[in-house]
Amino acid sequence: MNAEIIAVGSEMLTQDRVDTDSLWLTGKLNDLGVEVKQKMIVGDDRDRLAAAIAAALDRVPVLILTGGLGPTEDDVTREAVAQALHRRLLFSQEICDWIEARFKRFGRQMAEINKRQAFLIDGAEALPNPNGTAPGQWIDMPGGMLILLPGPPRELKPMFDDHCLPRLKERLPQAFIRTRFFRAAGIGESDLDAIIAPIYKPYTNPVTTILAAEGDVQVHLRAQCSTAEEAESLVEELGAKILSALGQRVYSTNGDPLEVAVGHMLCARQATLAVAESCTAGLLGGRVTEVPGSSAWFLGGFQVYGTAMKTRLLGLDEKLVDGHGVVSEAVACAMADSARDRTGATYALSITGEAGPESATAGIEPGTVWIGVATPEGVDAKMFRFPSGRSRVRLFAVQTALNLLRLRLQ
Amino acid sequence: MNAEIIAVGSEMLTQDRVDTDSLWLTGKLNDLGVEVKQKMIVGDDRDRLAAAIAAALDRVPVLILTGGLGPTEDDVTREAVAQALHRRLLFSQEICDWIEARFKRFGRQMAEINKRQAFLIDGAEALPNPNGTAPGQWIDMPGGMLILLPGPPRELKPMFDDHCLPRLKERLPQAFIRTRFFRAAGIGESDLDAIIAPIYKPYTNPVTTILAAEGDVQVHLRAQCSTAEEAESLVEELGAKILSALGQRVYSTNGDPLEVAVGHMLCARQATLAVAESCTAGLLGGRVTEVPGSSAWFLGGFQVYGTAMKTRLLGLDEKLVDGHGVVSEAVACAMADSARDRTGATYALSITGEAGPESATAGIEPGTVWIGVATPEGVDAKMFRFPSGRSRVRLFAVQTALNLLRLRLQ
Repeated sequence: MNAEIIAVGSEMLTQDRVDTDSLWLTGKLNDLGVEVKQKMIVGDDRDRLAAAIAAALDRVPVLILTGGLGPTEDDVTREAVAQALHRRLLFSQEICDWIEARFKRFGRQMAEINKRQAFLIDGAEALPNPNGTAPGQWIDMPGGMLILLPGPPRELKPMFDDHCLPRLKERLPQAFIRTRFFRAAGIGESDLDAIIAPIYKPYTNPVTTILAAEGDVQVHLRAQCSTAEEAESLVEELGAKILSALGQRVYSTNGDPLEVAVGHMLCARQATLAVAESCTAGLLGGRVTEVPGSSAWFLGGFQVYGTAMKTRLLGLDEKLVDGHGVVSEAVACAMADSARDRTGATYALSITGEAGPESATAGIEPGTVWIGVATPEGVDAKMFRFPSGRSRVRLFAVQTALNLLRLRLQ
Repeated sequence: MNAEIIAVGSEMLTQDRVDTDSLWLTGKLNDLGVEVKQKMIVGDDRDRLAAAIAAALDRVPVLILTGGLGPTEDDVTREAVAQALHRRLLFSQEICDWIEARFKRFGRQMAEINKRQAFLIDGAEALPNPNGTAPGQWIDMPGGMLILLPGPPRELKPMFDDHCLPRLKERLPQAFIRTRFFRAAGIGESDLDAIIAPIYKPYTNPVTTILAAEGDVQVHLRAQCSTAEEAESLVEELGAKILSALGQRVYSTNGDPLEVAVGHMLCARQATLAVAESCTAGLLGGRVTEVPGSSAWFLGGFQVYGTAMKTRLLGLDEKLVDGHGVVSEAVACAMADSARDRTGATYALSITGEAGPESATAGIEPGTVWIGVATPEGVDAKMFRFPSGRSRVRLFAVQTALNLLRLRLQ
């Protein structure tokens, strides 16, 4: 079955905005055996959008629209769909009450303008939005469906998972797709590909895709067969070969990010973690606490960004800092040691480095980062040189610190 | 004048590939006064692409196609354009010789398949490609133009700059574009729109666009006129009205994010900042240090995620914490006070709240956050209820803390 996706919003026709919703949706649709045949980005222009919708519905049975469901005059998706389908927009008091209640919960009053979001296309079902004011809309069409989703990913994703996936599964012809998803750390994309290319290249089914972010490489396998057993056996066969070739570089086989994997390991040992962050200044703590329930294993730490903070907050010897320099093995070890000591945590990670763009530390190239690991057995540190770019260096540092701890816990 | 861009290639309909050529082209076109009205991604399917081309040419005078000019059967752009325009493809011996010579230069022999790249649409001019084998094609159309460019950015960009820009400048009516860009905090998208809609609605030129992220609202104005003076005077006129209506909610008129604006203010006063973060656990420190040179004004702080850390690292009175609860005005004030005191910073911000998804603190709803501000004059705290979603609550908290400090510094 074929689909098209239309992202609505003039801001996505500028030079700096990319439509990422459609990427996520494509993954979800592919998993259902639905292929995305065409994508479009249309501005906040009702007539143009209505024409695009009508044309797309002539081509494919499944059409998804993202964005343009906000409360302002700019938000034309509802009107454009009504126009394309020659249907009316009907005011829903129920949705209006729901939006109003949502505002009240946050101690605010609903603006008159938000009533626009309470209009449903005739024949549409409202899709609840727990993360925003705009409900989605689901319209069953002859032989297909038209789906309106809000643009913000935090609204779109749960709405699709909770309310569209079940409906799609009911309506779509059964296709048997099985997937495997591995996440690896401590290895770059090309190095990983060099290891596994000889393994996956002979297979056209499953399809293998490799994706990389800062210090994180993902391997996706996707088999599509006429029976579930066949698809399962294909991904199992190739997956096992790839896993064995990658060994302990793989930290997750269920999609969990690194901080979740590390959290499970710490919980299993009833151990806790503290941090001392210089060039990352809190990013590591911020990242691990993105995990709900992380208070079971993360205690806290020290943002020792300024040099004086290393002595002032962590009690490092000024002579040690001056003698070795702030970006050094000795300082990384002392930071981790002190953070562990002062918080009472089982483990502590420290990060001290030069994020750039220019070097603030004589003789230290931007991208140079020392990462310390303090454990009940002692403390040590390792040096890394990450590819340039301030944000990238910091993201790499956080990922690498977590990976060092993971390898220690394994 | 209006344009559309079609990116050709099935690989761009997967879940991990984004069309970036169109972003770069959009910047170039906007600079010429050409607006991109719609973008499309079409797979390697000749009929579908031909239909998309024909439809686009009905809508806009300028159509740019990127990709699909390679030598394989997958590369269907030439054939699709010929089909859409009902023109023939003509073999060019000159282009064929040029491709052959290019192969020879790299010590290789031209494959038979590359002859496909030597076909020109009847009436097209070839655009030389010094960085690849696929020439571009330029077709003058009644009142407009159709441009075929290769997909790889290192081939597309110089070809556009060297061969398309001069032709476009000759053919396009001179247009002048001027923009304004405001960023506001401490106000939601709908509330902001309610204030400025009556001001911008009467203007169709400049075009006003409003974008919102967690606690950050952006207002873009863009005027297009036949003289630079006229465009400038239009954005200036509307911009001044909007600015005056929004007052000190606007923190930036040059695109700077909030942390940069706050950094400038602190620098101007030779003041410094420290933080004490509970539910954000480092995100605030991580965000302000994303700014290069932030060490001039950011000292560091405390990640007091676990309750015990508030007494252990910040020295808060256990009775105070137990008596008021960790998410309370008293604790927020004490955290900010202690962070300021222990770091020696001029200002300190504290964040303590319940990020969710479930409440870990009896009687405190997820989304409830207290933010404290310690200054040389004293300390106080304010309570906020942010919309649900763990990440969002934390992002809102960070943005709001920075905004409270900004308002204090103004």
